[in-house]
Amino acid sequence: MTTASDAADRPVPAAAEADVADTAEPSSSHHFFTIAEDQPLSLDSGPTLAPVKVAYQTHGELNQDKSNAILVCHALTGDQFLTGRNLWTDRPGWWETMVGPGKTLDTDRYFIICSNVLGGCMGTTGPKDIDHATGRPYGLNFPVITIADMVRLQKRLIDHLGIEQLFCVTGGSMGGMQVLQWAANYPEQVYVAAPIATAARHSAQNIAFHEVGRQAIMADPNWHNGDYYSHGVLPQRGLAVARMAAHITYLSEAALQNKFDRNLQDRAKVSFGFDADFQVESYLRHQGSSFVDRFDANSYLYITRAMDYFDMEAEFDGILANAFRGTKTEFCIVSFTSDWLYPTAENKAIVRALNAAAARVSFVEVNSDRGHDAFLLDEPEMFTTLGGFLQAAAARRGLTGP
Amino acid sequence: MTTASDAADRPVPAAAEADVADTAEPSSSHHFFTIAEDQPLSLDSGPTLAPVKVAYQTHGELNQDKSNAILVCHALTGDQFLTGRNLWTDRPGWWETMVGPGKTLDTDRYFIICSNVLGGCMGTTGPKDIDHATGRPYGLNFPVITIADMVRLQKRLIDHLGIEQLFCVTGGSMGGMQVLQWAANYPEQVYVAAPIATAARHSAQNIAFHEVGRQAIMADPNWHNGDYYSHGVLPQRGLAVARMAAHITYLSEAALQNKFDRNLQDRAKVSFGFDADFQVESYLRHQGSSFVDRFDANSYLYITRAMDYFDMEAEFDGILANAFRGTKTEFCIVSFTSDWLYPTAENKAIVRALNAAAARVSFVEVNSDRGHDAFLLDEPEMFTTLGGFLQAAAARRGLTGP
Repeated sequence: MTTASDAADRPVPAAAEADVADTAEPSSSHHFFTIAEDQPLSLDSGPTLAPVKVAYQTHGELNQDKSNAILVCHALTGDQFLTGRNLWTDRPGWWETMVGPGKTLDTDRYFIICSNVLGGCMGTTGPKDIDHATGRPYGLNFPVITIADMVRLQKRLIDHLGIEQLFCVTGGSMGGMQVLQWAANYPEQVYVAAPIATAARHSAQNIAFHEVGRQAIMADPNWHNGDYYSHGVLPQRGLAVARMAAHITYLSEAALQNKFDRNLQDRAKVSFGFDADFQVESYLRHQGSSFVDRFDANSYLYITRAMDYFDMEAEFDGILANAFRGTKTEFCIVSFTSDWLYPTAENKAIVRALNAAAARVSFVEVNSDRGHDAFLLDEPEMFTTLGGFLQAAAARRGLTGP
Repeated sequence: MTTASDAADRPVPAAAEADVADTAEPSSSHHFFTIAEDQPLSLDSGPTLAPVKVAYQTHGELNQDKSNAILVCHALTGDQFLTGRNLWTDRPGWWETMVGPGKTLDTDRYFIICSNVLGGCMGTTGPKDIDHATGRPYGLNFPVITIADMVRLQKRLIDHLGIEQLFCVTGGSMGGMQVLQWAANYPEQVYVAAPIATAARHSAQNIAFHEVGRQAIMADPNWHNGDYYSHGVLPQRGLAVARMAAHITYLSEAALQNKFDRNLQDRAKVSFGFDADFQVESYLRHQGSSFVDRFDANSYLYITRAMDYFDMEAEFDGILANAFRGTKTEFCIVSFTSDWLYPTAENKAIVRALNAAAARVSFVEVNSDRGHDAFLLDEPEMFTTLGGFLQAAAARRGLTGP
């Protein structure tokens, strides 16, 4: 079993500790931006937080009038590494299908920014980082955060970069929630917005699945009430179970059936035991065990909590349309037919609210049997939809192609 | 925390230790039947098992020619207590809506039998019982069992009761799997069969959810590789997480939304913490914590495994219809519109196979937004459907009403 000290040795790669250029991708580079103690970040829960370090990656070049910037917001277990080598995990970026030269988010044309969210564990300040007040990792002393807090921190980064208005804010799943929050809270800073496979509020079932994951982590004796950092252990078994349960919600029933059916794993007959007889068991166990190597259990608690608290309707006096009244931002909403985590109905609720607010909005439900994770995959209809939307918006904004 | 010794004190109520009449319900009584060492039970996995104790409850009176017996097969976490006081938990029976005088399964008219399944923990031999070979609880030395093994044991009970042909075999969920297995393996012994909300094989998603539950139990250090009985502890935290994850699959998204939405639990505002702020969290935690008081974690492992192994198509050379060729049994299949655990499509696959085998079958998809658990609830369309089916069958069989 990996211990906390192993983990402390491992996931702080030297390359990620400083601003670096990704040699494989000349236009990509990894950076840190720090909010100092004298300008703390305000949080919805009341307290302020400082210092706050933000880890972010950029791709492409910011043009002269800083009008070609696209902010990508990542999902629950995503990070700032969209494409190219992930400096923390040494794996490819999570949105290789979408981001790159000539791709939908064209790095030859746009300046693409993606930052690790507040509370994350890939370089942005989160519960595993040192609380300067105590000299020890925050653990459960980290304040509970919200999607709006994440966005507030991103806004500080965008201000720091001197970008007055983002050309586009986009992202899927929890990324889409941040897109909605950006559009609602900073409408003047968002030219177009493309939330994908998301919802304007977490449903009872969404909360229920997250609560199972949190209880799995908290049930692990290695969790030590969030203070595992000082016990030299990690709540890996609980975190793996949390990931396994969540992972089922990312795939459609059909996707699981098509991929695995009842196929056996490296055997001709069932073993009449509790080994991973079935491929789907082996796959899920792998999803769990590989996740714990790259993700902090407390970050998982804090970020799932932020998602559960997300309810833009409640934020805007019970009327979602109020979030977008008078907006000049243009929206493109994409959902997937087989997504049962944030189903089309939830995405349509956003479309209805935008229509009620007289916002310009286009909506496409992409036919896919791959469930929620379709937004991460090679889905040509999604690329065509977003590509066309961005193309038209770029023309209106006077962004000439590369 | 309840310990194994507490549990050993508690869940063996004196009343459940011997054949007893339920004083509240004169026609109900609880019994044990034991398979002796010289007539061991054959198991699909190879070995035989003996002795095997079967705990069962009966309601109503067996008529002179023993033609009015209905066998009810229970679901994963069900037991033999259909109606009246559960002698182990002191709670009402799990199918009060269906079973009783004048109800669909009319105890004034039929002799209703329900036995705890093989591998269970309510009196029938399971992993928490003493292995006579070692003098210690079986734990993981208990053989892995199948749905067919459960049914084989029930067949021994029915033979013991001198019943040549059951009037009806019925049950929901895993109970429905046993019904199908009865009809396939002992067609002459089943006059009519009514499997409800079930499937002829476990899907990849079904297996996936069970695997999450098993991993949650096995991740609990108190599990001790199944030998917690001798460590004076119980893997309650793991079992609670398993139950929470499973419970979500028993309810529809709409049922959760209608029941809980984002309502807060005993508070006006979110706490910005990890308490059960939302009612749905509180409800799920209660489902988890109350379950561990009545269920053995190893039984949960063994019974979920039996369900995952269930694949009647594979058992009958890859053609489900082969399971029912030449059958004289008449079938009534019931599914629920919002059941996503064993959805209508799975139930229709059974109907198609029965049609292909030229069996007599009626099928009703009941409109309900309550998800899989609808089969346990007050669903008038289910009662009407089954009631009419049984009424016609009883008339054909010459069973006169009370």
